[in-house]
Amino acid sequence: MPFFTQLTDCQAKMPQLLARYLPLPGHNELAKAMHYACLNGGKRLRPLLALMTAELFETDVAVLEPVIVAIEFIHCYSLLHDDLPAMDNDDMRRGKPTCHKVFGEATAILAGDALLTLAFEILSHPEHFPTLDKSTILKIIQVIAYAAGCQGMVKGQSIDLSAEGKTLSLENLIEMHRAKTGALIAASVQCGALAGQKATQDDLYELHNFAEALGLCFQIQDDILDAEGNKEILGKQTGQDVKNQKCTFVTLLGNLEAKKHAKTWHDKAQTCLDRFGDKAASLRALTTYIFERAT
Amino acid sequence: MPFFTQLTDCQAKMPQLLARYLPLPGHNELAKAMHYACLNGGKRLRPLLALMTAELFETDVAVLEPVIVAIEFIHCYSLLHDDLPAMDNDDMRRGKPTCHKVFGEATAILAGDALLTLAFEILSHPEHFPTLDKSTILKIIQVIAYAAGCQGMVKGQSIDLSAEGKTLSLENLIEMHRAKTGALIAASVQCGALAGQKATQDDLYELHNFAEALGLCFQIQDDILDAEGNKEILGKQTGQDVKNQKCTFVTLLGNLEAKKHAKTWHDKAQTCLDRFGDKAASLRALTTYIFERAT
Repeated sequence: MPFFTQLTDCQAKMPQLLARYLPLPGHNELAKAMHYACLNGGKRLRPLLALMTAELFETDVAVLEPVIVAIEFIHCYSLLHDDLPAMDNDDMRRGKPTCHKVFGEATAILAGDALLTLAFEILSHPEHFPTLDKSTILKIIQVIAYAAGCQGMVKGQSIDLSAEGKTLSLENLIEMHRAKTGALIAASVQCGALAGQKATQDDLYELHNFAEALGLCFQIQDDILDAEGNKEILGKQTGQDVKNQKCTFVTLLGNLEAKKHAKTWHDKAQTCLDRFGDKAASLRALTTYIFERAT
Repeated sequence: MPFFTQLTDCQAKMPQLLARYLPLPGHNELAKAMHYACLNGGKRLRPLLALMTAELFETDVAVLEPVIVAIEFIHCYSLLHDDLPAMDNDDMRRGKPTCHKVFGEATAILAGDALLTLAFEILSHPEHFPTLDKSTILKIIQVIAYAAGCQGMVKGQSIDLSAEGKTLSLENLIEMHRAKTGALIAASVQCGALAGQKATQDDLYELHNFAEALGLCFQIQDDILDAEGNKEILGKQTGQDVKNQKCTFVTLLGNLEAKKHAKTWHDKAQTCLDRFGDKAASLRALTTYIFERAT
C-alpha cells in the first residue's frame, strides 16, 4: 500500500476503532469528554508506527488493534492533561476548543484519568489477543506503562514545566524530549515489534534507536512549526513557545541550526532501518513525512 | 494475630513497602510529590482487606505485596486528584496540607498520573509474582483497572461532582458510592482472593457482596464523621459536606437514620462472611472497626 494511502487509511479508521472501546456517551459528561478528547482528528502517528513496525515481522495487524487503541488513549490523555490551566493552559487543540474549555476542568482531569485507566484495562483482557501468549501481553503492558509514567512521559512533562523561563543545555533539552514525547513513540514501535513475537534482541535495539531519533526529529519539527508554521494549517496558535518562555530547539539553536539538527536525526532514523531492507519502506516514508510535515 | 496488631502492623509496614516501589525523591519534585501523597499515615484499609481476604485461602501474603502497593498507589492518586482546586478544593488531608498546596497544582496532577501509571507497571512484571500464573496476573490487572476507571471510581467521582447542590435519591446516592469508593474496596477483596488461586466462583461472589456492603458502611460512617466527628482526630475540617452542598447519607436521612443504615450494611457484610467460618475472624473484626471508627 502506498504510504499516503496507509496514512489516510489509518487516520480514517482510528475514530471508529477508538469509539468501539470507549464507554457510550449518552448523557454522561465523563464519557462525552473522553470521546471529545480522542475523536478529534489526531495525526495517529503512534498507531501508524506500531502498525508499520508490525509489518516488518509480517504480523497480522488485527492483533495490534487493542494495543494501538491503548497507546492512542494514553497519548490523548496526556494532551488533555497538558492543556489544563495549571499546565500549558491551552485554549485550542487541533482547531477546536480544548477539553476543559468545553467540559470544565474537573471533567477534563477525570476524562484523562479514565482514558489512562481504560488503556490498561483493554490490555489486561487476554481474549483481545487470541494469538499472543500471556508473557507477551504482560511485556506490552510493561513497555507502555514504563514509557507513560514517571520515568517517561510524565517525567518529561514535569521537567518541561519546571524549565519554563529557563535555558536548558542542548543535552538536557534532548533528555526532556526523549522522556516527554520520545518514550511513548519508542513504546509504540516496540509494541509493534513485540506483537509479532519474532523480533530478536538486535531488532528491538535498532528499532529503539530508530524511534528515539524519529521522536527527536518530530519534536524539533514541532518547535520549528511553532516558530514559523501556519496557524490555519496547524489548527492552533503559533508563537506559543516564546510567549510561554519555553526553551526549545529553535530558541536554543535558531531556526537554521534547528533544521540541521532535525535533518541529522532524520538521517539517523533512516540508517537504523537499514537492517530491515525493503520491508521498512513504509517506516522510511513515515520518517520523511515527519521531517517534512507542515502540521 | 489479634486484629489491632494486624492493623497497626500493616499501617507501620506500608510506608516502607510503598517507598520500595516509588522513584527516589532526590531533587525531583515529581518524585517528592509522589512520596508525599503516599507516605502520609493513611488507614491502609485496602491493603489490609486484600491481606485478610488472602488469609481465608491460606495464601502466602508475600505474593500480595506488589498488588497491595498498586492498589494503595491508585487510592492515593484518587485522593490527590479529588483534593485539587478544580475538584473538591481541599487544603488539608490527614492533618497536613494537600499535595497541590505543597507542590503546586501542575505537579500534583502529574504525581497522580504517575502513581496511577506506576500501579500498572508494577503489576505487569511477572517476576514480582513468582508463584502466580500469568492468567491470574492479567485478571488482577483487569479487576483493578475496571474498578479504578470510568465504570468505577472515576465514574463515581464524576457523578459526585455533578451532584453538588442537588438532592439525589437514596438509590442514586448508593450507586454513586458503589462506584466512587466501593469499587476499589471490592477490587482489593477480589485481588486478595485471586492471589490464592483457590477461590471458587461462589467464594468470589459472596466476597463481592461483602465488599460492597462494607464499602457502603464505610461511606455512611464517613458522612456521619463529617457531620459530627472530631476535627482533631480526623485531621481534616468537618462540616465540609454541608459547606460544599454535597448530598450525603446524613443530609438525606439525618444522623440517626444514617446510623441505622450503616448498621444494616455492617450486618449484611458480616453475614456474607458466614461461609468462611473462623477463618474470617480478621475480616469480621475489620468490619466492626470500620463501623465503629472515629477517624
